[in-house]
Amino acid sequence: MGSLEALRPGSVVLVGGGPGDAGLMTVAGRAAVEQADVLLVDHLAPAGALEWADPGAEIVCVSKLPRGPFTPQERINELLIAHARAGRRVVRLKGGDGFVFGRGMEELLACSEAGVPVRVIPGVSSSTAVPALAGIPVTHRGLVRGFSVISGHLPPDHPDNTLDYAALAASGTTLVVLMGVANLAAITKALLVHGMDAGTPAAVVVRGGHPDQEVLTAPLHDIARVAGSVRPPAVTVIGEVARWASSVHEEEIH
Amino acid sequence: MGSLEALRPGSVVLVGGGPGDAGLMTVAGRAAVEQADVLLVDHLAPAGALEWADPGAEIVCVSKLPRGPFTPQERINELLIAHARAGRRVVRLKGGDGFVFGRGMEELLACSEAGVPVRVIPGVSSSTAVPALAGIPVTHRGLVRGFSVISGHLPPDHPDNTLDYAALAASGTTLVVLMGVANLAAITKALLVHGMDAGTPAAVVVRGGHPDQEVLTAPLHDIARVAGSVRPPAVTVIGEVARWASSVHEEEIH
Repeated sequence: MGSLEALRPGSVVLVGGGPGDAGLMTVAGRAAVEQADVLLVDHLAPAGALEWADPGAEIVCVSKLPRGPFTPQERINELLIAHARAGRRVVRLKGGDGFVFGRGMEELLACSEAGVPVRVIPGVSSSTAVPALAGIPVTHRGLVRGFSVISGHLPPDHPDNTLDYAALAASGTTLVVLMGVANLAAITKALLVHGMDAGTPAAVVVRGGHPDQEVLTAPLHDIARVAGSVRPPAVTVIGEVARWASSVHEEEIH
Repeated sequence: MGSLEALRPGSVVLVGGGPGDAGLMTVAGRAAVEQADVLLVDHLAPAGALEWADPGAEIVCVSKLPRGPFTPQERINELLIAHARAGRRVVRLKGGDGFVFGRGMEELLACSEAGVPVRVIPGVSSSTAVPALAGIPVTHRGLVRGFSVISGHLPPDHPDNTLDYAALAASGTTLVVLMGVANLAAITKALLVHGMDAGTPAAVVVRGGHPDQEVLTAPLHDIARVAGSVRPPAVTVIGEVARWASSVHEEEIH
């Protein structure tokens, strides 16, 4: 067993690719990419990792871009199963960790139900690594004993949003928001309404782990304005630890 | 820049070693280990990764075992600085991610204040990877939109514990407890008192990522009893996603 087990023909490996820098792929993830006959790849997967693939390997782009190429999840599941049934060694490579907002479990269940052997190689999650790359520890002795990672994809008052923002504001944990750029004003408003201190340090890390990484900082009450023109991917950190963010000035942002 | 930058003599690199399987080290972390003149290593760091070190490299054990060898954090900081000032390429290798309950920021600040160049290579955090290795995704579309990772090192009612268990119970996130084995009964009691459903699935993953990994499962109200004889390291997951845990029967535990 172990993460370095060789890929078997007719099987699928779900590989977490980390936040974007190929160096933050795992050793086992790299080995899987090198052995793959076919790779199904997201737009957030580390592009540099594809250089490790066999020149004869087939690379299939299955991105889900809001205003670009879009591959439905059901289609991705079908492709994983079809390639495995054709006897190939299939690697599903995506950004971050497949089990942190990555739909990895959906892919795992689909393969399992189809009788296709499937295993998971965890990756470096953007939820902790992107803050770290901006100089922010999500925990710190004597300061904070936990962190909460939430999806900001839905606004706080959306009927499908099962997160309790009053509880999140009161939890005593650092708050890390993924996919929250578009709803940042609504999210910060919900936290303020529920009593979080308006002066709580906050940081938005844009394209964390990429050469053009940018970090914007402001107190909680102002972070949505300061990060107003930011485009995804971005990770927002709210809590005392965000005071350590290695920030760039707003003026330097284009 | 980038994580694969060569190590410079007289500098320190803080490397997250992942949950224990050397294959879950990052590619950049491995490269740093290969280049190091001296490695300061925890007992939770992946032992297999030391095989990548140069045969001439010095390996210093700086574990903090509750009833075993104990190196105070101040001493570790001093060693990092002293080795760097001696012109060496210093790698600090620890389990998981150095910025997730890893005191990485303390080491980074100590080096910075001493004028020693220091950088961070994030690692695969046990907080997400250990659940994944037990078949548990910390998030899942349509089920849960976030997760909270907390230290269980202090009991919930300890005066230094700044976590709000009522809020954690109500947050709508998967709860991941690190360092919580000794206080598991008190932690689950606090969650139940604050209204978390007694039937919520829970899992304790023992030595996740190691060949002798074990997974114990039970509803929240019973998990502390079922995991009563477990020894650290262990990661506890509480939430609907824990129903996917690949469990072993209690009878199989020795």
